Parts: sequence; C-alpha cells; structure tokens
Amino acid sequence: MITNKIGIVGLGVVGTGTLKILINERDSIYNKMGVWIDVKKACDLNINREFEFDFNKNILTTDYSEIINDPEIGTVVELIGGDGIAKKIILDAIKAKKNVVTANKALIAKHGKELFEEANKNNVKIYFEASVGGGIPIITPLKESLAGNSILSIKGIINGTANYILTEMTEKGLEFKDVLKKAQELGYAEADPTFDIEGIDTAHKITILASLAYGGYVNFNNVSVKGITKITKEDIEYAKDFSYNIKLLASAKKFNSEIEIRVEPTLVKKTEMLASVNDAYNAIEVVGDYVGKTLFYGRGAGMEPTGSAVVADVIKLATETNYKDAPNGNYYYNINNEIKLKDINDSISKYYIRLKVKDEAGMLAFIAEEFKKENISIESMIQTSKATKDNNFVSLIFITHEAKEKNLVNALSNIEKNNDIDMKNSISLKID
Amino acid sequence: MITNKIGIVGLGVVGTGTLKILINERDSIYNKMGVWIDVKKACDLNINREFEFDFNKNILTTDYSEIINDPEIGTVVELIGGDGIAKKIILDAIKAKKNVVTANKALIAKHGKELFEEANKNNVKIYFEASVGGGIPIITPLKESLAGNSILSIKGIINGTANYILTEMTEKGLEFKDVLKKAQELGYAEADPTFDIEGIDTAHKITILASLAYGGYVNFNNVSVKGITKITKEDIEYAKDFSYNIKLLASAKKFNSEIEIRVEPTLVKKTEMLASVNDAYNAIEVVGDYVGKTLFYGRGAGMEPTGSAVVADVIKLATETNYKDAPNGNYYYNINNEIKLKDINDSISKYYIRLKVKDEAGMLAFIAEEFKKENISIESMIQTSKATKDNNFVSLIFITHEAKEKNLVNALSNIEKNNDIDMKNSISLKID
Repeated sequence: MITNKIGIVGLGVVGTGTLKILINERDSIYNKMGVWIDVKKACDLNINREFEFDFNKNILTTDYSEIINDPEIGTVVELIGGDGIAKKIILDAIKAKKNVVTANKALIAKHGKELFEEANKNNVKIYFEASVGGGIPIITPLKESLAGNSILSIKGIINGTANYILTEMTEKGLEFKDVLKKAQELGYAEADPTFDIEGIDTAHKITILASLAYGGYVNFNNVSVKGITKITKEDIEYAKDFSYNIKLLASAKKFNSEIEIRVEPTLVKKTEMLASVNDAYNAIEVVGDYVGKTLFYGRGAGMEPTGSAVVADVIKLATETNYKDAPNGNYYYNINNEIKLKDINDSISKYYIRLKVKDEAGMLAFIAEEFKKENISIESMIQTSKATKDNNFVSLIFITHEAKEKNLVNALSNIEKNNDIDMKNSISLKID
Repeated sequence: MITNKIGIVGLGVVGTGTLKILINERDSIYNKMGVWIDVKKACDLNINREFEFDFNKNILTTDYSEIINDPEIGTVVELIGGDGIAKKIILDAIKAKKNVVTANKALIAKHGKELFEEANKNNVKIYFEASVGGGIPIITPLKESLAGNSILSIKGIINGTANYILTEMTEKGLEFKDVLKKAQELGYAEADPTFDIEGIDTAHKITILASLAYGGYVNFNNVSVKGITKITKEDIEYAKDFSYNIKLLASAKKFNSEIEIRVEPTLVKKTEMLASVNDAYNAIEVVGDYVGKTLFYGRGAGMEPTGSAVVADVIKLATETNYKDAPNGNYYYNINNEIKLKDINDSISKYYIRLKVKDEAGMLAFIAEEFKKENISIESMIQTSKATKDNNFVSLIFITHEAKEKNLVNALSNIEKNNDIDMKNSISLKID
C-alpha cells in the first residue's frame, strides 16, 4: 500500500469540509480507489477552534512552509481563495515539486497561464475540479469523458447567490434589492456581494471552462460581463409571460477559430433544463459534436459539496501518482495558445428590451424608427395595463427577432438621446 | 509516443459511431490526452458496406479471433450487444489478457459477477461507460468524482424509448398504443419493444449503477420491474392535475445494509429536474452524503453519443495502460459481496391509484373501508366530470399519504374481489 501524504492550506468552509471527508472516509476511499490518503498537515491561522469531527490535532499548524518544506508531502491542497497569498503558496508548492489541488477560481481564471507554465516547468499538476460548480463533477468529465468531442458550446448557471436571488424574484415576485437584503441576512449572500451579483465570480468560472474546452488560456480582462442588479420584478414577469425565466447565464461558444465568452442575465426558455435550475443549485450544459447536449447539475457551493470535489482531485492525483510516467496531454490550458475571443458586437441574438418611456404620443413611432434604422425587427411588443406607471413613465416591452449586438447598441444609444426615455431604468437582455 | 492498438467487434450503430470518432479524432485525442489510439482491426459480419467516413479498409475482418489472437491489441471493444456471442467474445478477450470496453448493459447486469471474476483473475479491466445513459458521463463520475461520498440514492430516466412515449402522451394527450405505433414507424422504438416498454432495459442499467454505488453485485432476477404499458392518457392527465409528470423511473436507495432497487412508472413532482427530462433524453440523479443532489443529463442512445462514451473508456484504458502498476480498488463490482436487496413490500411511499369502478352507490364506501383496514389514508380523491364513462364504469382517483407497499398490495387484492371493480383496467403508481 502506497500512502499518499498531503497538506491542506486553509481551513475555512471548504478546507474544513475537505479535511472532514478525508479523515472520515479514509477507509472507504481506500476500498474504492486503492489509494490511502494521509493528511499529514493542515494549516490555518486559527487552529485552536472546535472541529465537529475527530482527528489528530498534531497535524495542525499555522505555518504553511511546514507543508511546502515537508519532503513526504506530494500534494498541497490550497483552500484559502483569492489571488493574494494563495498564489504565492501555490507557486511555492509547485517550485517544491508538489502537485496542487485548489478550488480557487479567481486565481485559475486570472493567473492560470502563469501557474500552468510553472507547473509544466516543474513537471507537476494543478487540479481544480472544485473551482467550478462546487460539488458537481464537471472538470474531469469535460476533460476526459468528452475527450472525443469538439465542444460546440457551454452554458452555465454557476453562481448560487445570483441564482438564489433570481429564483426568489421569480417565485415570490420580489424586487432585487429586497431579496439581496434577505439573502445577506440568511448568509446566502456576502456582506459585499459584488463578485456574485455583478457576474465576476461567474466570469471566473466560465473562463476556466472555456480554457479547458478550447485548449488554451483566456485573457480574463476581455471577457464580457454583466450582472443582475438592474433586473426588476417587472422584467421577470414579462419574461414569464413570454415563457422564459431570467437566469445569470455564462456561455462560451465556438465560432470557427473564435470563441465568444459572455456572462449576462439572459432569458432562457422554460422548456430548457437550465430554466429549471433553481435556488443555489448550479448547472452546466455542454454540447459536444458527437455527444450532443449534456448537462451536469448539483450544489454549486458549500462545505461538503465543494469538499467532495476537492477530495475527488486528491484521489485522482494519488491514483495517478501511483502510476509511473503519466502521459501529459498538452491541450488543456495550453500556455502557448491564447484563445481568440469573438467580438461580442458581432454576435447575433434575440433580445428582450424594456424601455421606460414618457407616456405621450409619438414615442412608439420614434423607437420603432430607431430600431428600423438598425435593421432590428420586432417579434412582439407589450404596452398593456401591466405597465406600471411611474412618474408618468410607462414600460414598453419589445421582443426582437435575431439582431446583431452592435446594431442593438447603436439603436439604444440613439434612443437614449431622447430625453423622454429614461435609459437608466431601462434594460436589454439577451434571449437564449 | 506509445501507440495503443485496439480491436472493435461489432460495427452496428454504436460500433460504427465509435470507429468514426476514433478515426476522425485521432489527432485531437492525442493532443488532449497524450494517447495515440490505433484501431488495428474491426470485425463485423457485413464488411462490404459503405461507410460515411474514410479509413483503411484493410482493418476490416469478419473473424473476431483475429482480434483476440493479435498480441499487439491490448483492448477489445465489444459492441455486438446481447448475452449470446458477445459474452463469449468478452471472455475470450479477457483470457487473452486484453482489457475490454463494452456498451452491453444486459450482459454486465446479468453476468457481471462472472465477467469481473474472470477479469480480476487475468488482471485486466472491463469498462462500460456507454452501458448506461448513452453519451452521458455517469459511470466514471460515479466511480471516481464522487468517490468520497456514500451514495444515498440513485434515480434515473434511462430508457429513451419509454421516455419518448411518455413525453408524447403527456404533451399531445395520446394513448400509449398510438404513440408506440408512431414511435415504431419513426424508428424510435424497435419492432419488438418489450425490453424498452416493460422496463427490462431500464432494470439492466439501474442494476449496473447500483453495483457501482453499493460496491458489489446484484442478482438481476430479484430486481422489481414494472413497465409502462398500462399507463393511460387519463393517468397522465390526473397526474398533471396534481402537479406531477409520469416517468419510467429506475431507483436504487440505501436503507442501512439493504438496497432497494426498483423500476416502475412513477409520478415525479413537476418542480424536480427529473420531471423536465423529455423525449429520448436520459438523466441520472445521484445523491451523495457530502455532495448532496447531483444530476447528469444527455442523450441516452444513438450512434455518436454512445460512441462518445465508448471512446472515453478507450482513452481511459489507454491512459492507464501507459501507467505502470495501476492500483485496483476492490470495491466496485466486488465479486465477493452480493448486495442485499430490500424487500419492496416493506417500502414506504405515497401512491396514485386509479380504479375503474361500476357507477353505482356504495362503491366509494367499500373502497374506503378496504383502504382503512390496511391503514392507508387518503390525501385527495377525484371523481369528477373528468372521469370518462366507459361501459358504465367511472374512474376514481386516489392520492394516498405514505403507506407500506405490502398494505397497498393487500388492499388492492381485497378490492379486486369485488366484481364491480375492473382491476385489469385499474392502476397504482408510486409517487416519488
């Protein structure tokens, strides 16, 4: 029996869940996978707290260099998060020729190229199943189970907080800010929820998935990101009327040699599986050229679900480390290949547009003319009793036929020049 | 570069899809996974037909022993199906020390113990990702990605034909036999659809999943199986009224040391992801003690989706064979552990019951009394204008509170004694 000694750095929520599973399930993991995982050290700044499971407290340390410098430890599990000290720890581990497991999506998305370059140089591996979709097995299935496929597109609901907020708005008819407040009180949203509600966390995750699906790295700064803060309960209700749910959707789609990556609130047809993904659940739809449409669903966060995914990587590394001469494909996170991103302006989609317009004659004619100038044709329009009056402004709702993003932007910027239209309180959303 | 030479036996739908992917994607698989897969031979009785992709026709043979006897071939891919010659070919391959990949669910479900025993003896592996859920990555995620978890339950919609029929009945208000006929005309159902509509194919697949989840083998003959042939459009409509869809559901659930495995048409709450799995799509819900609820969705059959899964196994074996001294957990398909099946009679569930009853006084009192005797309490009941008259019989619909299966069986068998109740045209269904 080969013992695989590992060190964990960071015993927050995910670190504690990971340690718990590795301690409690050591025998069962050995029975299943033939590998014996020994957590030799676990590092955290606060090690004098209570744990809800039993283990030898001698493994605890406050000094991560004890893990880096331990020649017996082959795998370092980084669960601090963020791109500060976590990055240094991972680089130190790599330079010490240790494999790395991490759940750190921000770090992989923004600094993946540097990290994988260093890992290749030192002939070690970085695994990060837990970085996307919490407990959902998605990274390994995408890399391995679908390896025969070219990936045509990926769509994901991959931020639990945003999805919880949109679900509550949809099911209870509440406004964004009221749900956010409640979510913060319940601990479902952080005190500073920016990363979740502005789509940044979602963008980190789709960046990682795109890097894997399209074999290269992505310049994170070029990814198009819109959050959900402008969505109103009115939008949710109109979307429902047209048989859509509004979801914060991340997508990566192949167009010849370019990849379009975007994160934005999107109308998803109710008959699509993704439209049924509610509350804090996540789901990732992957379309391959042979396999067709697949979908992976589960808890996108939390101590034990995310711990489950970290443990899967630890086991995978232990299994592979026991093998000799592991072959190393050079496709995933190919550091020599920057993925070429498609210009969002060229993308084509149907759109939902809600305009706050002064309730007076001629407004519709003006707007219709601006759409016409940009070749945007309207599939349906609502200006009904449902349109709530608000300082003498009414809502006009348009569903467009397929149009170019660029033309939509032009039309809206011309419409904005009209002072009788309140663009601050208007919105346009992609329809999937 | 290590070349991994394989042989394919059977070039039907799945075999052709597999060959196509392995030929067309050889370079891309090498780029991704670092393994070079060479299909050295492919065997079929009919090799003089057209193929829609180019390859060296010299690899074709009608004699499978050429594959078994070729010392260069390390992996045999069996894609004939059934438990006749396919079994002999697999055993021959194993005895020749070759790894095996198969999509053959009937064979694995019924003869898994014998096959894995022989494989262990010869130190080779049998992989079978394509046997359940077609292209959906489920076997590897279940075995590896969720290895830290105890599996609490598995539920699956894993027969495309049955799901297509139920979906058509639900969406178009058609009767079973009309949809079946149409499905046969369209080629979605086979001329002899018994395996699909009687739940046998579904039972094969849940047997395989249970063997993996619960580490042992299952005596297939003891698995409880009911098909969908008795479902009427009336049932579908009443289920809808109560906010359920009827699905042919396979389930495996852990109760202490026993596992309940069953296949039967079941009412699934519309808010559950499984209720939204329509047409020929499959989905498997896996609940783990740490990960919580996960779901895997995709095309459950077809040339290219199933080929995609076969290819994943071929790649996996190639990757692992390139490793030395692969550790071999003894948990999955543990041939020394027959999984103890829970007696279905002891299981507890809510039920939907539709009774065809002569339209006369006293019938409801009689039925209510029989339910009462068996401690079955009724949550709701319908005898409305919707109940279609049929030879002076009306339908009574009951939704029960939770009750023991045994008590339900007893109550129904007592009710059956009353000649004014037409049990042949009545039905009871589990509510999930």
